[in-house]
Amino acid sequence: MSNLPNVAPLQAINLAHKAALIDQQWSPRVVAEMNDYQFKVVRIEGEFIWHSHPETDEAFLVLEGVLRIDLPHGSVFVGPGELYVVPRGMEHRTAAEGEARLMMIEPRGVLNTGHEGGERTATNDVWI
Amino acid sequence: MSNLPNVAPLQAINLAHKAALIDQQWSPRVVAEMNDYQFKVVRIEGEFIWHSHPETDEAFLVLEGVLRIDLPHGSVFVGPGELYVVPRGMEHRTAAEGEARLMMIEPRGVLNTGHEGGERTATNDVWI
Repeated sequence: MSNLPNVAPLQAINLAHKAALIDQQWSPRVVAEMNDYQFKVVRIEGEFIWHSHPETDEAFLVLEGVLRIDLPHGSVFVGPGELYVVPRGMEHRTAAEGEARLMMIEPRGVLNTGHEGGERTATNDVWI
Repeated sequence: MSNLPNVAPLQAINLAHKAALIDQQWSPRVVAEMNDYQFKVVRIEGEFIWHSHPETDEAFLVLEGVLRIDLPHGSVFVGPGELYVVPRGMEHRTAAEGEARLMMIEPRGVLNTGHEGGERTATNDVWI
């Protein structure tokens, strides 16, 4: 047992509680890591920009509200307790009428705007 | 756009509905993939066996009921909407008093019993 990690907190991560701590929309906050992936919670409202992540799939799990994901061939509506995975390289735009609270799962280092950049790019790797 | 995947269903995955389709406990069923990771839903009740996954962290998200994760230094109780990541190499045992329904996230190919094997090893990579 000598090389085992010696710090695993005996406390689960409550995703709704984490979301409630975030002070602004469209600002993903990291709540946990699994290998080189990060679990991020985000509050969104309105429409984001079209972008893609050529290097990775991106998973969305809705905690509260309804997430709309616009894809080149149509829109998907994702409600609480529902999961959707946007394939790598696929253009997409997230949106919500009223606020939605989500968890995203993706490799560490992925930016919210993919290769688009611009003013809506959030600071990456901020924990809450 | 020529190399983009042309099939992304316009339908989200409802995790509770998937769990309700599973006909036996302790039998993880794959509901989605993200790169080389799989999202698996499982129904559990009672105690599993102690095991570890030396090659990977393992994430648990509770959908219904309460998951207890026994670790070498204590137990964590994970309720609905809560997440816990067991670090790679750490011995653990999942348990639930009454049924719990979970989503697990881990690389494709990880067996439920890790390196322990034995009669509780579930068939891997079964989709629902």
